[in-house]
Order: sequence, then C-alpha cells, then structure tokens
Amino acid sequence: MVADNRAEPPPVAIVMGSQSDWATLAHAAETLDALGVPYSARIVSAHRTPDRLVAFAKGAEAEGFRVVIAGAGGAAHLPGMVASMTALPVFGVPVQSSTLSGLDSLLSIVQMPAGVPVGTLAIGRAGAVNAALLAASVLALSDRELAGRLAGWRRAQTDGVAETPSGSA
Amino acid sequence: MVADNRAEPPPVAIVMGSQSDWATLAHAAETLDALGVPYSARIVSAHRTPDRLVAFAKGAEAEGFRVVIAGAGGAAHLPGMVASMTALPVFGVPVQSSTLSGLDSLLSIVQMPAGVPVGTLAIGRAGAVNAALLAASVLALSDRELAGRLAGWRRAQTDGVAETPSGSA
Amino acid sequence: MVADNRAEPPPVAIVMGSQSDWATLAHAAETLDALGVPYSARIVSAHRTPDRLVAFAKGAEAEGFRVVIAGAGGAAHLPGMVASMTALPVFGVPVQSSTLSGLDSLLSIVQMPAGVPVGTLAIGRAGAVNAALLAASVLALSDRELAGRLAGWRRAQTDGVAETPSGSA
Amino acid sequence: MVADNRAEPPPVAIVMGSQSDWATLAHAAETLDALGVPYSARIVSAHRTPDRLVAFAKGAEAEGFRVVIAGAGGAAHLPGMVASMTALPVFGVPVQSSTLSGLDSLLSIVQMPAGVPVGTLAIGRAGAVNAALLAASVLALSDRELAGRLAGWRRAQTDGVAETPSGSA
Amino acid sequence: MVADNRAEPPPVAIVMGSQSDWATLAHAAETLDALGVPYSARIVSAHRTPDRLVAFAKGAEAEGFRVVIAGAGGAAHLPGMVASMTALPVFGVPVQSSTLSGLDSLLSIVQMPAGVPVGTLAIGRAGAVNAALLAASVLALSDRELAGRLAGWRRAQTDGVAETPSGSA
Amino acid sequence: MVADNRAEPPPVAIVMGSQSDWATLAHAAETLDALGVPYSARIVSAHRTPDRLVAFAKGAEAEGFRVVIAGAGGAAHLPGMVASMTALPVFGVPVQSSTLSGLDSLLSIVQMPAGVPVGTLAIGRAGAVNAALLAASVLALSDRELAGRLAGWRRAQTDGVAETPSGSA
Amino acid sequence: MVADNRAEPPPVAIVMGSQSDWATLAHAAETLDALGVPYSARIVSAHRTPDRLVAFAKGAEAEGFRVVIAGAGGAAHLPGMVASMTALPVFGVPVQSSTLSGLDSLLSIVQMPAGVPVGTLAIGRAGAVNAALLAASVLALSDRELAGRLAGWRRAQTDGVAETPSGSA
Amino acid sequence: MVADNRAEPPPVAIVMGSQSDWATLAHAAETLDALGVPYSARIVSAHRTPDRLVAFAKGAEAEGFRVVIAGAGGAAHLPGMVASMTALPVFGVPVQSSTLSGLDSLLSIVQMPAGVPVGTLAIGRAGAVNAALLAASVLALSDRELAGRLAGWRRAQTDGVAETPSGSA
Repeated sequence: MVADNRAEPPPVAIVMGSQSDWATLAHAAETLDALGVPYSARIVSAHRTPDRLVAFAKGAEAEGFRVVIAGAGGAAHLPGMVASMTALPVFGVPVQSSTLSGLDSLLSIVQMPAGVPVGTLAIGRAGAVNAALLAASVLALSDRELAGRLAGWRRAQTDGVAETPSGSA
Repeated sequence: MVADNRAEPPPVAIVMGSQSDWATLAHAAETLDALGVPYSARIVSAHRTPDRLVAFAKGAEAEGFRVVIAGAGGAAHLPGMVASMTALPVFGVPVQSSTLSGLDSLLSIVQMPAGVPVGTLAIGRAGAVNAALLAASVLALSDRELAGRLAGWRRAQTDGVAETPSGSA
Repeated sequence: MVADNRAEPPPVAIVMGSQSDWATLAHAAETLDALGVPYSARIVSAHRTPDRLVAFAKGAEAEGFRVVIAGAGGAAHLPGMVASMTALPVFGVPVQSSTLSGLDSLLSIVQMPAGVPVGTLAIGRAGAVNAALLAASVLALSDRELAGRLAGWRRAQTDGVAETPSGSA
Repeated sequence: MVADNRAEPPPVAIVMGSQSDWATLAHAAETLDALGVPYSARIVSAHRTPDRLVAFAKGAEAEGFRVVIAGAGGAAHLPGMVASMTALPVFGVPVQSSTLSGLDSLLSIVQMPAGVPVGTLAIGRAGAVNAALLAASVLALSDRELAGRLAGWRRAQTDGVAETPSGSA
Repeated sequence: MVADNRAEPPPVAIVMGSQSDWATLAHAAETLDALGVPYSARIVSAHRTPDRLVAFAKGAEAEGFRVVIAGAGGAAHLPGMVASMTALPVFGVPVQSSTLSGLDSLLSIVQMPAGVPVGTLAIGRAGAVNAALLAASVLALSDRELAGRLAGWRRAQTDGVAETPSGSA
Repeated sequence: MVADNRAEPPPVAIVMGSQSDWATLAHAAETLDALGVPYSARIVSAHRTPDRLVAFAKGAEAEGFRVVIAGAGGAAHLPGMVASMTALPVFGVPVQSSTLSGLDSLLSIVQMPAGVPVGTLAIGRAGAVNAALLAASVLALSDRELAGRLAGWRRAQTDGVAETPSGSA
Repeated sequence: MVADNRAEPPPVAIVMGSQSDWATLAHAAETLDALGVPYSARIVSAHRTPDRLVAFAKGAEAEGFRVVIAGAGGAAHLPGMVASMTALPVFGVPVQSSTLSGLDSLLSIVQMPAGVPVGTLAIGRAGAVNAALLAASVLALSDRELAGRLAGWRRAQTDGVAETPSGSA
Repeated sequence: MVADNRAEPPPVAIVMGSQSDWATLAHAAETLDALGVPYSARIVSAHRTPDRLVAFAKGAEAEGFRVVIAGAGGAAHLPGMVASMTALPVFGVPVQSSTLSGLDSLLSIVQMPAGVPVGTLAIGRAGAVNAALLAASVLALSDRELAGRLAGWRRAQTDGVAETPSGSA
C-alpha cells in the first residue's frame, strides 16, 4: 500500500483528516489498486489545515480529479467542506471513533443540508472499500475497460461466496 | 411534479418503496427538473414486489439508466438490493420513519457490507434534493452543458444566502 | 457442529449472509441438534449473491422447508428479502456488528413494513439459540414428539437454574 | 373491529398490556379478520394483573390457542413473560411509547435471553399487521385453505403496488 | 463474599436473573456487608423460573423482607415483575449487557408504566453499590443504629476523596 | 392540586427544578393525595438557586421529611445533588425534555456514581406517579394504615383492568 | 430583535448557517441585548457560502470581534470551521434538526478533534441563551461594568424562582 | 505531569470528580503546560464532597481563577454545579464512561437549562486538550504574550500535518 499509485493525473483523490485515518482509508486505496484505478492519497485536515482544505477542494477539478473520497472521524467536517467547494462527486467515509463507535462521524457526514451532497458509505473498513467501488462505478460510466474490470471484480466476489459455512462455532 | 419527465431514455431512475415515499422523493424529481436532467420515477417495493425489484435492477443498465436514486423507510432494503444487482452508481435516500425518525432507515441503507456500495444522503427532504445533485454531478463529468447548469444552480444557491438574518425570533 | 445434519428433507433452513455469521448462527444449529430437529445451513448473501437469494427464497417451500432462520449483520437485508419471496415463517437473527454493536442489524431486520413479517430475535448468540427454539415451537404444533422434546428441554433449563449464586464477585 | 371473532376455540390469542394498546393491536385483529383466522383479544397486564398473566400463559395451550400475539409498550414485559410460561410460539409487538418512540418497547421485547424466545415485529401498526401475518403463516403450515388465503392476500398486496407514484409532493 | 449472610429473617433480598449477574450484584452484597445489613441473595430468573419468581415475589413480605434489590440484563423483566407482585420497595440494577452496553437493561427496568414502581439505579457495579445504599437508607428510617453506620459510611467516603489528583496521566 | 397538602411535618418532599416541571410532578402529588400521604411541593433549582438547594437538602431530615421526590429535565442535576447532601432516600423523576425526549434527563439522573444513590423512575408522568407509589411503599414499612391504603390502591388498579379491549382501533 | 445592535466594533459575532437558524439564535441576541453587549448577527453558511466562511473566520479578530457564537443544525460544520481559522473563543449552538432532534447537530459540533476547540452549549433555545451568557462571562473578565450587569442578571434569575409551584397539572 | 504548576494565583482551575478522571484531565494540564498557562488541579466531587464543591465554586473568583475547566463522567454534575455558583466561564469535559461510552457524561454536561452555561468539549482526551486551548484563547484576549504562544502552538500543529499518509493499512 502506498499513498499514491498515480498515473498523471489520477482520477480519484483520497483525502483524510489525519494519519490515523489511513488505517481505514487504505482499504479504499487497496480496492482501487485491485480495480486498476489510479488515485492520490493525501492528508487534508479540515480543522488543522483549513488553507490546505480550501486549496485542495477548489483545485480538485483543475488538478484532474473526477471523484473525491473523503474520510474523517468524530465531528467529521472534511467530506462536507470539500463538497461545498467543488462540483465533483464527493463520497464520505465515516471513520470509527474511539468514543461513540463512529455514530458521530456518520451523522456529521451524512446529515448535510439540501444543496451540498456527500454520498456517504458505511462506518469503517466496509465504507472505505465501498467508496472505492462507488468511485469506480462512476468512472466506469465513461470507461468501458474499467466497467469490465469492475464487473469482473463483482463476479469474483459472487463466485467467492461458499455454499455452506465451514468450521464449528 | 410528475413522476416522469422522460426524454428517451432518461439517465436517472428514481425508485421508491411506496407511494408514501413520493412526498420525500419528489424533491429529487423537482431538483432534477430544475437542472434539466430527465428521469423516470417508479415505485419498486423490495418487499411487496420483489420480482419488480429484480427486473428493474438487472435491467437498469440496459434500459439506459446511468444513475439510480433509491429511497425507502424503516427496514429500507431497496437501495442496497438494487445495488446488489447493478453496477450503476446507486444513491440512497432514507425516508423519515414515523417511529424512529429515520434512524432505522439511515442505518438500513448506509451500513452496507464491503462489496456493494450505496452512496447515502441525509434523512428526508434534504437527502432527496442532494441525491439529485449528486446524480447530476456524476452525469456532469461527461456532459459539459449539464456541468454548466449545475455550476449555475450552485452559484444561485450561494448568491441566495442573505448577509444578515431577517425578522424577529 | 456441521452445517447440515439433514434428514431428507429437513424442515428448517438456516441461512446467513457470510461465513463470519456462522460464529453466531451455529448456536441455532446446536440448539436444533439438541432438539433433534434436522436443518440445512447455507450461506446466502443478499448483496453478494442476489440470484442465490431469489432461488433459495422462491424454492424454499418446494424444497420442503417449513421454517427459515436467517441471520445477518449491519444493513441486514437477508431476512426481510427472504420473507418477501416466501410465505413460510421467517425468523431473523441480528448479528452483532463491529461498529454499532448490532443496533444497525436489529433495526434493519425488525422494522419491516406492514405486509412482510420477520419474527426477530435478540442480537447475537441469544437470538440464534432462540430462533431455533421458536422454529421448534412452530414445528411442535404438528409434531407431538418434538413437543415432548421441547418441553423436556425447557424443563431441564428450569431445573438447571441454581437457587443461589456461587463464587465471589 | 370487535375484540373477539371467536370460533371455538380460536387458534390465535391477542393479548395486550392495556386498553390503550388496542389502538395498535387492533391492526393485528383486522388482518386476522381479513385472512379468516379466528382470535380472541384480551387485556393481560403483566404488571397490573400478574395473576391473570400467569393464568393466561399457563392455560393458553389448554385453551386451544396455537399462537400468541402479545403487544405492550415502555418496559414491555408481557410478551417475554408469556413466553416464559408457554411452549407456544409468541410474537411480540412493541407499542410506540410517548417518550422514547418505542425504542424502549422494542428492546424490552426483543432482547430476551437465550432459552425463552419472542419473535418480535416492528414498532407500532406495521408490527401488529405483521404479527397477524406471521401467525397466519405458522397456522398455514397445517391448513391448506388458510395457506391459499394467505397466498391470495400477498398476491393482492403485490398487485396493489402502483407502477408510478401519483400526485405532487 | 457469600450469597447469604443471613440473620433470620434478613431484611434485604438480592435477586438476580442468572449466575452471571452475580459478578455485578455481589457489589450490592459487599456494600450491605460493610453496613451490617443482613441479606439473602438468590437466583430468580423471570424467564427460566417463572414459578420461582411468583413464589418469591408473593412471599417476600411474609418471608420478612422489607426491601428487594433485583438485577438483570438485556430484556430485564425481573425487577418489574417482582414489583408487580409485592408492595415492598423494589430497587432495580441494570446489568451491563454484551451487545448494547446495558441500555436495553436500563430501559427494560426503568420505563415501568404508572402503577408499578421500580427505583432504578445506574448500569453495572455503581448501580449495585447504590442499590445497597438506597436499601440501607430506607431501613435506616426506622433503625437508628443503621442510620449511624450509614452516616459513618458516607463520612468516610467523603473523607476518602483526596484534594489533588496523583500520578501522571 | 395544590403544592402543599401539608400536615406538619409532612413525610414527603416533592422538589422540582422549575415551574414547568410541575406539569409532570403534580402527578406525584395527586397520587400521594389519593394515598393520604402528606407532602410539601417546592421549586428548588440546582442551577438557578444553588443556595436553596443546599439549604433544602441539608435540612430535609431536620425538617421531618423521610423521603424526597426530585424531578428535573435536561442536564437534570437536582436529584443527584439532593442525594449528595442527605441520607434520606431520594427518588428521581426524569422530566421529558423538548429536544431529546427525556433521554438526557434519564441518563443525568440514573447514572450516578457508586456512593450516592438516586432511585430513578420512568420519564414523565408514569415516573411521577411511580415515585409517589415508591415513597408510599417506603413509608408503609412502618405505617400499617398506609400499607392498607396502598394495598387497596393496588387492588383497585388490578380490578380496574378490563378483560377485553373495547372500541375500534 | 434586530440582527445588529452594533456599537463599532461590537465584541460578539453571532453567525448562523441559514435564515431558519435565526429562530434559535435570536435568543442569543436577545440575551446580549439584555446584558448590554453589542453584537453583529450574520448568516454564514459553511456549505453554501464557503468563501464567506473563510473571509469571516480569518477576519473576525481584525474586525474587532472577541468572541464568536456560531449556530447550525444537522451536519453542523460552521462552529468547527470557524474555530479552525481563528484563535478567538468560539461557542457553538446546536440547532434542533427536524429529523434527529438535534443529536446530529450536537455531535457534529461537540466532537471536535484535539487541537481545535468549540465550547458547545445545549441544543436549541437554551443553548442560544447560554452562548450569550458564556460570551458575556468571557468579556466580563476585563469589563467590570459588564461583570456587574451579568451578576445582576444572574441575581434576578435566582430571585425570579418561585418557592412553590403554582397551578394545577 | 503534576497536579499543580502554580504561579500564584494561577488563572485556570482544573477540577475533576475523582482520581480516575485524572487520566483524562491530565491532558488539559499538559496542554496548559505547553502553553505556559499556570493552573491548579483538584479533585472536587459534586456527589461525594458537596461542601468542597460549594466552597470551591463560590470562592473560585476570589481565589483568582479566571476560567474553570471541570471534568466528570456518568451523571456528570460537576461542571454545571460549578457554573451555578460562579460567574466565571466554565468549560466541561465529559469523561468516557465504562458503560455508555460517555454519552451519559456528554448529555449531563451539555444539556444545561437556559441561564447557567457550560461550554462543553468533546468526550475524553480530545475534550481535555481542547478545554485547555479554549481556556487559553479566553485568557489570550487580554494577554498578548499568551496570544503569541497560542498562535505558535496552532501554527506548529498545522505545520505538523504531513502531506501524505505513511505506512500500510
């Protein structure tokens, strides 16, 4: 796992509020790797680096990004603030918080007011994987080869489900 | 508001679990109308019309849809089940439920397992509006004119915010 | 514990969303073993194997099942979707989720709309044991011997409760 | 709606903690009426009439009941206490409480310990309707005519779902 | 710690739903020991031993008990059901549950309907200690010596609070 | 309903955080009236009248009170702070709050640390009635006539429960 | 109530996310009026007017503000984002949301990560009043006259608490 | 870390409900140390040492304190009770509780009624750090040197955020 598998310019930005969120967001990166989708992963803290936030969000489209995956925990403002400054689709990943299990992260991301959307995924690892898949499905609308790889990924997932459970409880 | 403003074929499907969800999802339709994005709105109940669900979800791509907006309340399975049978991006709108204020709807939609993503918006009207905006932002990636209209919509929204509050409390 | 103690055809189906749910659902299997009730345990993922879901649910009655026990976690759609495609009694077991302690699983299973019932049990192991007992109580309505075994099981449970607690805190 | 449409002996008992719960539980009675399933509806308060509770629960099987539907709100102990004194299947309906929206009712009913099951339905009216449907599905296992009526009810429900939403938001 | 330090007849009954609750309720016993209040500790499962529940609750006053401490977890019906069958003061201790942290236990005990009171303490150990202190404060209303010991206990508690915190974080 | 039906000295104090809490606490007063238990009802705001709080709590025993009923809403500190300054039994009534339905009131009252007990009743009217009944049950331990009246009240309550529900839903 | 009672420059800024929040925040303005503290009230939407947010927050100190009161609802990012761009004390008011009663607003404001503080008040009107009082207490640290007015306000509040409740329930 | 780095008189008081809260509140002390702000840390239990509470709160201003940081867990009454007896700004830190993850602590502190404000920070360590920063920002309003150190602290924090995440997931 590296923070950047970038072809120039990569279509997906993965931004997160802190280094500790990488434990979750790396699952998005891994999934994009598996699908052959280039990305750039960066730390952009809405609260500790607001200038970086503004620069990133306002410049994301010009930088060539087409989809933004943003993850944060607690009072998670990153996804919504990015969405306020770009017209690109923004997908939010609530990072599981130490105190309230990520319920605070989830509500802080998903309950956006009318006018500024964030497509929110599940709390934690599942959400990170799914943000990557959702980003890929968006890109696949205009990329037949990616559509093929995504279909293959889904087929493999389906084929990988055993018929019966194994092992004792 | 009509259920269908379709150009053939419309790029957005709005599906909902019951007639009563239309009070919420119509806000998605209105927003798409404002943005000049054609759509088809249908009732597809995961629980009462499972065959219709399968037919819709499996055929959505062939029908020409590029994005699906799915709204439901309570044990809201429609968005996730559609996502299980199509590779199109699916955006979920939790309808406010009468008993638990939509917390059940929200968790039933957003907490999808890794592998099958639903981009979830806020509970109720705000979520419906935002599902439309998010769908438009996805379509705008390959439609310059729509991108322009979306930018205009956002600019008008920004311009419409008064500097100071008016009226007494 | 094996996934299948089947007499042909077994009256109880135990279905679960993934291999990891077996750690919970195996307690249902063990309880059915103790009561002498044959069952077949299978992995049926509503989201990753939707075709298998449809095939299972529509064919459950013809396969000879009389009761379905369905367990899943997170946005747990399996029990409700099975119930949408069979008239057999469906009992749902919310699997404890890693982030929200199974509250998401519980609400996703129990808050079904009017028209499609899922009899829901407690989160986790207790729910799995009780799903088996409830299935047995249904089958016992037309099976005197099973009724006797169930009565014995309950009597033994009652007799096994000590009068006073033992050990220090 | 009458509290008792009884053929002698009716197979379904509907018990509730107080007169005020009838506003919810009557939906179970109506649904059983529609399916042609006789029932007896009674007030049995776990807290205010504990002797009646014991008499009802211990005598339910001898009275000829085959399924018990029990509804209560708040610290709702009725379903679980009935289940502790009968081997019949017990289905619980959480009545929406005035303070906590029925979350207290739901948890008090569904979180039973291993050993004494209550199949729990949704909070409020939907749960009451579904308790009746679940009871009918249990009885239909040994009553072909009821199975036919239940299938018809479900078919009518499916057929009654319009293709498109009507009316403005 | 023993389950019974009884003088005959002890004024306090400590009842709990299962052996596993003793880890919590033993803190009530220890506190009563420290205050010199005799008690009898018993396992009375509302669900697995309903006859024992009825016998205990109806006979508690005749047995000489003056206060009942009742602890249970999950769908915790023991305190409320005891209170339905005795006019003695009943104090409830919600045992921390494995899935929902005792929120289910708390709501199942505290949300009693008007007419049957349970004085509810905090979830877990703190609640068990406090149930003992509350029982002692009730008994102390007519027992000057106990009132003195209770006052001493409280004074010692106050005196035991250091002025400043010690140690590093 | 008057705030004071006092015989001198009344055994029960009813204290509440504000005038608006009287809508709830008056149900405690009514119930004590019905049981023939004198009381004094006062407004004691922990936050707005802390001196009055200290004076009341420290003087409660000397004033002749034997039980304190304390009700408050939101960050409800009154019951716990009274309990910190008197050895009398304190019973807390969580008043339903406008924002969080009384969940904040409940947790603020019931989650007391080990050492200072508050016997907590249900949120709202039911809790107020039950605080009165619990206070009466404590006083009845040393007052045979009150015990008789309380038994009569409970008997009347039991007798008042109809056998069957009446009216349509 | 006017949005601006400004002396130049006023020490308190009241910012809110939308016109609809004024129904809540006006209570802060009223309280500041009563205390003789000048303020300027403005609409600053974190999501719809991000440039205005940056301009306001970065310029707040230079504009002469000494304390910022910020109120918003749902995924309420305004208080935290202001705090990320100013070293002034920021006090947050969670506005009651239509779906989740303001729990989302509360968690989005209070659960800030270490490094960027927002002093959060209660949900709704109480929080707005208290934000004004807290701002005044900060300003009073270096303004003896304001300290006197604040002390008077608090004294009047204490004196205004009646001894006994009035009226029937 | 020592409980007291006091210059005479220190401007900040850190009070906590028990020794165990020091594990959390020490982070406030450390942060004040880093900013060169003197403080005095003390244990003041609202429930176990109510006299100490009154003495501290009423004397805080005379002792020379200008800001109070108060932390407690569960039914956390300390911050609000201090605020009821001083006009100084009070900032509350909800300590994470063992049963309900600090949700009880948070609601007990933040949901204060109109009239007595507590500026509440996040649950746990983050809240303790932020209480110190908020206290410093208040003191910095009239202390240019502290303002400089605080600005430096914030700048260092911003500078310390890496551009990209490092390490594998």
